[in-house]
Amino acid sequence: MISSSKSKLIRSLHQKKFRDLNKLYIVEGEKMINEMLDTRADTEHKIQQIFAQTDWLEQHGSTLTSSQIEVHEASAGELKKVSNLVTPPPVLALVAIPEVDTQKSGLLSNPVLVFEAIRDPGNLGTIMRTADWFGIGHMVCSPDSVDLYNPKVVQSTMGAISRVSVHYLDLEEWMNEPEMKQRIIYGTFLDGDNIYQTTMEKDPVILFGNESSGLSNRYDPYLTRKISIPSFSQTGKSSESLNVASSVAVVCSELRREE
Amino acid sequence: MISSSKSKLIRSLHQKKFRDLNKLYIVEGEKMINEMLDTRADTEHKIQQIFAQTDWLEQHGSTLTSSQIEVHEASAGELKKVSNLVTPPPVLALVAIPEVDTQKSGLLSNPVLVFEAIRDPGNLGTIMRTADWFGIGHMVCSPDSVDLYNPKVVQSTMGAISRVSVHYLDLEEWMNEPEMKQRIIYGTFLDGDNIYQTTMEKDPVILFGNESSGLSNRYDPYLTRKISIPSFSQTGKSSESLNVASSVAVVCSELRREE
Repeated sequence: MISSSKSKLIRSLHQKKFRDLNKLYIVEGEKMINEMLDTRADTEHKIQQIFAQTDWLEQHGSTLTSSQIEVHEASAGELKKVSNLVTPPPVLALVAIPEVDTQKSGLLSNPVLVFEAIRDPGNLGTIMRTADWFGIGHMVCSPDSVDLYNPKVVQSTMGAISRVSVHYLDLEEWMNEPEMKQRIIYGTFLDGDNIYQTTMEKDPVILFGNESSGLSNRYDPYLTRKISIPSFSQTGKSSESLNVASSVAVVCSELRREE
Repeated sequence: MISSSKSKLIRSLHQKKFRDLNKLYIVEGEKMINEMLDTRADTEHKIQQIFAQTDWLEQHGSTLTSSQIEVHEASAGELKKVSNLVTPPPVLALVAIPEVDTQKSGLLSNPVLVFEAIRDPGNLGTIMRTADWFGIGHMVCSPDSVDLYNPKVVQSTMGAISRVSVHYLDLEEWMNEPEMKQRIIYGTFLDGDNIYQTTMEKDPVILFGNESSGLSNRYDPYLTRKISIPSFSQTGKSSESLNVASSVAVVCSELRREE
């Protein structure tokens, strides 16, 4: 069963301040948790506690006994009370939030996706999944972006959260660092150079703007180039912009297809 | 004010059966409604009723007096009670559901995006926005897909709902129709031909699968070719698949960049 103190702990983790305090976040559902168990030797995202229904435990008991994971059997009703999902999952895990790599060394030589004030949890999670698919392991978000460990972000990464590292940085301060002077930095705008007619350089830093206001002009001095996904609307009355996660998919695709 | 019968009507439209019965759907927020008012001469998505706060009405009063739209002043509190949004919008509209074009003539000569059992409202809406951006005006969904007029679908189209037409059809029956024999039909799979090494033919029909199970094999006999967006993950442990809306963005981009 899930004791009342555990239940209180899990529900508290829906809020950022308690995630920060306990250094734990919630993962739900078989698909993601099975994958995290399979790859747990290779990741810093260590599962600490598992709350699962009998069936799931019977299937995974042997994997768990040799681990240091604290395991609790739970009923569907108990899981429903602490879950964020509409249908209570057969298993829920509490995972250790890894220490942030203060070195930021990965940001110096790889492609990096950068987000100004990204707000929608589903967008951030979907973007991490896309980054992972295209082999991009590094992202930066401005501090006013949605929290990486927000349960909706975690669920929409579909597991990519353990493979893509996300730094929260003041973007101007970061781009002002001396090491960043040699980086190629692209900004995505509605009126930049046509991405299909632009050869992107290898391993760029690419900036994307907020869902409703786009990318602000304050980063202009740092940009190597402004780029744009052109609209092909025949009526001239197309949507004002692409969804940010869709833009990221197109830009990542263009980056990799040229390699 | 919003009378109790109007309030009941609006709330009933959160459910498909009452949308079908009343032939109305809900649109919320300034951005979408202002755009729909601007383009109302060109679309079959006619606004029938508007519920708005004083400020919005003062700005748009002149546009509305010459129209046949029924207008109601409403308080923030009243709008909150009938809204699907977290923050009550300054304006909410009830829009006529257009008659479905039973001719399906648009499906015979244009690019068409086809979805098997798409379930997530945000995905469908985002996909329509992407289709619109890339000038693709025709989509088909299997009958077990999420309803086009679900409020979450409508909101995530950001207005594309009035420019992209969506048919709900039994996919096998449709692909069996004699006129479809001449169509180029692509299916998206994890193991198809690399999309970056494939020249897509003009105006294809492109099939996408369900969010969790992908595209089923039952449409194989109708396919000209299976295509795939390759993964560039360096660890070999990337996400199992791309989100369907992200896949659509990449495929639409590939289709248009070659033109």
